Amino acid sequence: LWELPGTQGTLLLRHPSVRITSLTAKIDSAQHIASIFPKFKNRLDLMVTLPDVAAIAKSCEVVFLALPHTVSMELVPKLLKAGLRVIDLSADYRLADTAVYAKHYHCAHKDSANIAKGVYGLPELYRQMIKKTKLLANPGCYPTAAILSLAPLMACAAKGLEVDSVIIDAKSGVTGAGRKLAEGFLFCECNEDFKAYRVNAHQHAPEIDQEVSKLAGKKLSVTFVPHLLPVNRGILETIYVKKNHRGTKSQATSHKIHELYKKFYKTEPFVRIKDEGQFPRLRDVVGTNYCDIGIHEEAGQVIIIAAIDNLLKGASGQAVQNMNIMFGFAEQTGLC
Amino acid sequence: LWELPGTQGTLLLRHPSVRITSLTAKIDSAQHIASIFPKFKNRLDLMVTLPDVAAIAKSCEVVFLALPHTVSMELVPKLLKAGLRVIDLSADYRLADTAVYAKHYHCAHKDSANIAKGVYGLPELYRQMIKKTKLLANPGCYPTAAILSLAPLMACAAKGLEVDSVIIDAKSGVTGAGRKLAEGFLFCECNEDFKAYRVNAHQHAPEIDQEVSKLAGKKLSVTFVPHLLPVNRGILETIYVKKNHRGTKSQATSHKIHELYKKFYKTEPFVRIKDEGQFPRLRDVVGTNYCDIGIHEEAGQVIIIAAIDNLLKGASGQAVQNMNIMFGFAEQTGLC
Amino acid sequence: LWELPGTQGTLLLRHPSVRITSLTAKIDSAQHIASIFPKFKNRLDLMVTLPDVAAIAKSCEVVFLALPHTVSMELVPKLLKAGLRVIDLSADYRLADTAVYAKHYHCAHKDSANIAKGVYGLPELYRQMIKKTKLLANPGCYPTAAILSLAPLMACAAKGLEVDSVIIDAKSGVTGAGRKLAEGFLFCECNEDFKAYRVNAHQHAPEIDQEVSKLAGKKLSVTFVPHLLPVNRGILETIYVKKNHRGTKSQATSHKIHELYKKFYKTEPFVRIKDEGQFPRLRDVVGTNYCDIGIHEEAGQVIIIAAIDNLLKGASGQAVQNMNIMFGFAEQTGLC
Amino acid sequence: LWELPGTQGTLLLRHPSVRITSLTAKIDSAQHIASIFPKFKNRLDLMVTLPDVAAIAKSCEVVFLALPHTVSMELVPKLLKAGLRVIDLSADYRLADTAVYAKHYHCAHKDSANIAKGVYGLPELYRQMIKKTKLLANPGCYPTAAILSLAPLMACAAKGLEVDSVIIDAKSGVTGAGRKLAEGFLFCECNEDFKAYRVNAHQHAPEIDQEVSKLAGKKLSVTFVPHLLPVNRGILETIYVKKNHRGTKSQATSHKIHELYKKFYKTEPFVRIKDEGQFPRLRDVVGTNYCDIGIHEEAGQVIIIAAIDNLLKGASGQAVQNMNIMFGFAEQTGLC
Repeated sequence: LWELPGTQGTLLLRHPSVRITSLTAKIDSAQHIASIFPKFKNRLDLMVTLPDVAAIAKSCEVVFLALPHTVSMELVPKLLKAGLRVIDLSADYRLADTAVYAKHYHCAHKDSANIAKGVYGLPELYRQMIKKTKLLANPGCYPTAAILSLAPLMACAAKGLEVDSVIIDAKSGVTGAGRKLAEGFLFCECNEDFKAYRVNAHQHAPEIDQEVSKLAGKKLSVTFVPHLLPVNRGILETIYVKKNHRGTKSQATSHKIHELYKKFYKTEPFVRIKDEGQFPRLRDVVGTNYCDIGIHEEAGQVIIIAAIDNLLKGASGQAVQNMNIMFGFAEQTGLC
Repeated sequence: LWELPGTQGTLLLRHPSVRITSLTAKIDSAQHIASIFPKFKNRLDLMVTLPDVAAIAKSCEVVFLALPHTVSMELVPKLLKAGLRVIDLSADYRLADTAVYAKHYHCAHKDSANIAKGVYGLPELYRQMIKKTKLLANPGCYPTAAILSLAPLMACAAKGLEVDSVIIDAKSGVTGAGRKLAEGFLFCECNEDFKAYRVNAHQHAPEIDQEVSKLAGKKLSVTFVPHLLPVNRGILETIYVKKNHRGTKSQATSHKIHELYKKFYKTEPFVRIKDEGQFPRLRDVVGTNYCDIGIHEEAGQVIIIAAIDNLLKGASGQAVQNMNIMFGFAEQTGLC
Repeated sequence: LWELPGTQGTLLLRHPSVRITSLTAKIDSAQHIASIFPKFKNRLDLMVTLPDVAAIAKSCEVVFLALPHTVSMELVPKLLKAGLRVIDLSADYRLADTAVYAKHYHCAHKDSANIAKGVYGLPELYRQMIKKTKLLANPGCYPTAAILSLAPLMACAAKGLEVDSVIIDAKSGVTGAGRKLAEGFLFCECNEDFKAYRVNAHQHAPEIDQEVSKLAGKKLSVTFVPHLLPVNRGILETIYVKKNHRGTKSQATSHKIHELYKKFYKTEPFVRIKDEGQFPRLRDVVGTNYCDIGIHEEAGQVIIIAAIDNLLKGASGQAVQNMNIMFGFAEQTGLC
Repeated sequence: LWELPGTQGTLLLRHPSVRITSLTAKIDSAQHIASIFPKFKNRLDLMVTLPDVAAIAKSCEVVFLALPHTVSMELVPKLLKAGLRVIDLSADYRLADTAVYAKHYHCAHKDSANIAKGVYGLPELYRQMIKKTKLLANPGCYPTAAILSLAPLMACAAKGLEVDSVIIDAKSGVTGAGRKLAEGFLFCECNEDFKAYRVNAHQHAPEIDQEVSKLAGKKLSVTFVPHLLPVNRGILETIYVKKNHRGTKSQATSHKIHELYKKFYKTEPFVRIKDEGQFPRLRDVVGTNYCDIGIHEEAGQVIIIAAIDNLLKGASGQAVQNMNIMFGFAEQTGLC
């Protein structure tokens, strides 16, 4: 009951405590996975079939759903009812407010009953809840980098730091768009090009707003401008937070913020804070589940730069990290 | 009555003796060219309309047809009848043998009457005929590089050199495929990838066979394996010709072949022979109408490497070069 | 007395009123230009020699200097003394304040006498002064896009609009770095990577500050974070201006700002304002001298996105535009 | 006593039976591996030091040498003497004939005594010898794909098939060149470019000749033309073998050759033969240790296309595969 999102298959194949027992897709007739993706030849010997909840319930303990938004919520209630645990990579259970969902996904929510049961799967913020959930809403790729970048600072906001504005200038590789057959994603349209899209109108903005507001303890609304990078994988976000400083703007401030970040993520296995004056780059995170974060402050302007692999920490890797937590495996298993 | 193939529009805009007066396409309703291709904003103020032969005949002297194969031959007879000169960038008038055409383009030829009137627009071989024609069949991109690479040697074949086999290992940028909306041309499918396609089964092979056989004075059949390069523009072909040498295989042989090529193309404005030991690269020809050729011989194996811009010498640039010849303009006008 | 910066040579070869008569470089021995850059074979038949001011003065009217920063100012006084007009592509005559120059280029200025004679070559702002100058300081690539993006709004700032902060999130192709032999510019280091560099510490920031402050009529300091894009050419800047609005934040505001931009650049040949809701992309400007600008306003946050070809409007193209103005040629000559 | 070649470090980190205990390099002073390659932060906590054979002997059982050619042979005798097993990724122990080595690596061999002890580490041909060796000569990247492609056919050549000529048209990603700081490997020189290099003069040709001749039972000399692909990783080779057929050239022949390949590699874990009419692409092998091979025959011309990841099956992956064999681990351990 899943499609292979980027490297999901490869990750699970490598995981010592996982056995892939079923692959399903909306497909005309059953097909061998290696005839769809030749790279799985000799590695994964399974047929891809149409989803059948009863059959899945017999052979699986957990189901990864890599379905389009609005399709997931048709299957999730059935899977939960059959006693399965679900890790949903769509946006369907991420937003608490169904009105916000309807506005950004152009569709009324069909399973509002289960929204409250879903846990937003950002382990760095919700690890304890993830342990116990049956329904995990795996975060969006942009929100993962944005929320991890803002969390330490927003926690301060909750303690009195005044934040004037948050600007997220985000850049994503083309796999971020999925495998959509649209003219804008043709090689000759993307290669040697670069552009902004959905300027301040991307459906990931409310997901960021929701989490950042929770952290800050007050309603915040970010400015969010995503751009399309001519690379396969990776997200880099450059985030500008304007402080309403009431103290001094000394070197110490930049240093203090840096310390704050190091402390906040001290024990996290997948967040790495760069040394002062160092900033992340895609190369160091692509192919890994890490989120690298660099911080700089000057004249009241905080600049935070974060990088993740959109297919790993931004999707499949985080899904496996969440599965590890849900099943009590060591959190890094299969992700090194 | 044309679509903008790559840089056709830009070339003609820059040409001092050309005025673009009409743009047509199979289009639902008339649209400004800049709303289709924003790069023409402030540069070309024309509406794109549905083709109307009578209107075209009133406003144009020559028509560039950048239509899919099999569609050109429906319009060409009407345009010729209306007294227009036609430069056809499709394959419809390139092959003398309609049986070969039918086999490779999966369609019976609908205008065989005009095939004989068409001239194969490779100026280096057919300049005198191009001067007088009303119907120009602009060569394919792969054949242009292949035929220019083989012509001097094949002319020798006509004089007694025995050629055992001709292998063309061709590599093309993705614009070679046109602007087709197919999964295989998505950015993430082409980027960081490389592959052969239509192995010894590409529709350009018979075009090469036809011209090479004419030059050699006997029927030849090349082995042709095209590959897809993850770049926007450019074709590089590495060609292997096995000689049946009856003389000595000295250094002199490589040198003599090199001299032969320099002499053959001595006065050609758009063919450049690399110095001995030097070979072409895409960078030096992309954005130009040049064909660069390097030659090396060793132990009876001749290696010829040629590079062109598939959108210029392989398509639009050659079309403009042909127009210059047809209208008596200096051959390099608008192409420097 | 110039090196070929990107497409300088090609532009001048194509220009109907220009004859290239001399090429010089710091070179061990005289070399043909085509042996350095094979793409000039059969196109430009000149030797590259060591610079000799007397010889240059005999054969040239105008000299394009594409020298490293701090080297230009050694030659400029000699060239001016010899009666030549100079278009300097380095930063040496861009900054009015030598202290600022010394700080950012790590070198005391050696020709402060001529700084005042130099005109900052942004035609959209200084056309009348460019007409009369003998020494043109061609703007930096990042500043060109930034200043053109901010000028209409800053002109309002001069009239009372309060601007809280200006953030420039800039992304440049790798040619922006010149042809430097450094590990960071190797193919495998840049390809499939993306990163920020010189975070708020780039030498182009003071150039932007100088011009923006002049326009606003008060001292402003921008936040400037450049990033390295894995493409050859092109700069895209996403600029965030926070207004201290005292009026309403209606749709009308976004519309009014858009109108302001259209009016400001109405007669400019090389600035194109995108329709509302449309934003620029590299593809549409690469290979051209255009600067495309899109504008959006929401909740007091103005977002301006601009794109140029860093080698054309950001360097050589603007240099030729300036030459056209200096010599009384039509401004678009050789640039279409 | 090794440098990290591409993914060597990552592979070994993941290997369940390996502990990395020492990292050495020619380095001015000891440095943490994460300060050289930030991607190892939090993953590998080791200092890189200058090589000290005694110290290495104490802490290691096997040493991976990723040194430049001609440098390996200075260390290998010392390491062997200290009782260590050595997997050498350089070319120093690949060629049996020191005269051939001297000619292609421009250096007399300094350790000819150990050449005979070295085993050429292509498991598909030499698995039994690899099990017992102390000195493994890990094959070159181009030769790995070429020899695996030719082995089944050459084995037939040994049984009477006459082979007229073998042409290898090879294309490699830029990591194939190592991390050399040369102008030709700058981003803007490689990106959107493609070219041949060392035409029939590459140092990997004699390695292929040696192995192919051994298989065929007679001296063969291949034509080898490598090209530089604008991708980070991957090698694709298109190989043309001209048969001197004495039988019929029916469809059956292509089918028979295909059967021959499937049989030859039936039990091999890392060679995958594509279905008839299917050919490999880089995407399916990059990031894996597989060699994918496709075969087609027509009119006596056999076309074999093979793809590998040059950093894995072409280097580090094969080195780990060899280590697995040498130490009696399951051959696929750590490579899935």
